[in-house]
Amino acid sequence: MIKSVAIQGVKGSFHHIVSQQFFDENVNLIECLTFDRVVEALITKECDAAIMALENSIAGSIIPNYALIDNYNLHVVGEHYLDIQHNLMALPGQTIIDIKEVYSHPMALLQCKEFFKNHPHIKLVEDKDTAEVADRIHKNKLKGVGAIASVLAANIFNLDVLAHSIQTIKHNETRFAIVKRTNSEVAKEAINKASVKFEANHKRGSLAAILNVMSDCKLSLTKIQSLPIIDTPWKYAFFVDVTFETYADFDKAKSLIKIMAEGFKVLGEYKNAKL
Amino acid sequence: MIKSVAIQGVKGSFHHIVSQQFFDENVNLIECLTFDRVVEALITKECDAAIMALENSIAGSIIPNYALIDNYNLHVVGEHYLDIQHNLMALPGQTIIDIKEVYSHPMALLQCKEFFKNHPHIKLVEDKDTAEVADRIHKNKLKGVGAIASVLAANIFNLDVLAHSIQTIKHNETRFAIVKRTNSEVAKEAINKASVKFEANHKRGSLAAILNVMSDCKLSLTKIQSLPIIDTPWKYAFFVDVTFETYADFDKAKSLIKIMAEGFKVLGEYKNAKL
Repeated sequence: MIKSVAIQGVKGSFHHIVSQQFFDENVNLIECLTFDRVVEALITKECDAAIMALENSIAGSIIPNYALIDNYNLHVVGEHYLDIQHNLMALPGQTIIDIKEVYSHPMALLQCKEFFKNHPHIKLVEDKDTAEVADRIHKNKLKGVGAIASVLAANIFNLDVLAHSIQTIKHNETRFAIVKRTNSEVAKEAINKASVKFEANHKRGSLAAILNVMSDCKLSLTKIQSLPIIDTPWKYAFFVDVTFETYADFDKAKSLIKIMAEGFKVLGEYKNAKL
Repeated sequence: MIKSVAIQGVKGSFHHIVSQQFFDENVNLIECLTFDRVVEALITKECDAAIMALENSIAGSIIPNYALIDNYNLHVVGEHYLDIQHNLMALPGQTIIDIKEVYSHPMALLQCKEFFKNHPHIKLVEDKDTAEVADRIHKNKLKGVGAIASVLAANIFNLDVLAHSIQTIKHNETRFAIVKRTNSEVAKEAINKASVKFEANHKRGSLAAILNVMSDCKLSLTKIQSLPIIDTPWKYAFFVDVTFETYADFDKAKSLIKIMAEGFKVLGEYKNAKL
């Protein structure tokens, strides 16, 4: 039973939305300003689980988060997809003409740049977190100031949404991992996806040989990413996600790849959230 | 003959260092504040070539730059590796105790966070570009202000380096692409590396089949990265870099993969810069 969950950001952040959708609404949230702090909260047992963004359809993988999961031997026990929508919000009664300054996370400002080209009277200012600005506007009754954040943040902090979905690229799906200190308690029958890591060298065919085994064991590949291993020229770490019909197939692949590849490690076994 | 080159950032930036090391010193630099502007300069023929960071050993691939090269059908004609070293600099005569504020690019500030924990009297402020701050300190004779930038920037803007290599992770290698509007004029005999893109579906074995062909044609894989194709579930684009001994081997692989994979495209054929 999950009682408390560490998230990146404050209430109203996208990680909070994932927590609401994945867990019971009554979990206790531990708000963290960095992903390092999220992991710290998990390993010091301040919480039972943590939520970490892993990749998004615009910017690709968030490699430092893969490194955190790998280095601290955390376990991915679930995944969740969220379509990120940015909204402009301000104190009730304010209109877009009243807004002089908008504060938000640099990534959110970047994604909404085109929208603000049509509102050149608004100055854009970088800030730590999307929802935290909404909180500040609410608490200090800041007139003339806007936030870019989720509709959930507008609801929590009692702000009016002045414009919905103002990001340039309308479809921005982000994949989040639910991580724990120990392996999943999900029943084997419910598991149909896994994230693994292994090393292989530059020698021709070494990766192909491993993918052949996966294919022979009826695994389908949904993601692959090579990363050079620092200080070891021509050696690569591969992060691979696979889906499968039965756990027995994955079990068989594991026993074979363990022999073929160095540093084989299962980062998590869980239920595929993409149908 | 390359006469002018578009770079991201101003003189003294890491892209400028790459330009110096890759090209003749006398090329004319076009300084651009964004990668979009770099590509614009290239396609509007303001310059003959452009330099774009592609990936680094800490953060992984810079996916938006791959998308720019792909979408504008640019050609990678060379690659260059640079070990990024951040240095704290200020007006001559200033010491670290005099420095009250340090301005730099958010990524540089992040990478040097640990160093500044030992100097809590210094306030860190985000700015657009590393070298541009050095330029500003020099021009306005700003006392009490520091920049985090390259040694080249310190030399160009006549600043003193107060601390060398202040980044937390000492080894931060970044790979840059040299891109042009048209294909490389490099002699076929000098080409031993290529960047390709193709699409494959989620069906088991489809990627493995293509990697098998590469392996049969004696290509070695140095990088692979899958990206979901937006609005096409279960279909993936793969960006793959391969090295080879003879161009004929790559030619053979090309003709086979063209038949097997959808959307096969060569992003560039060039000389491997990693020995």
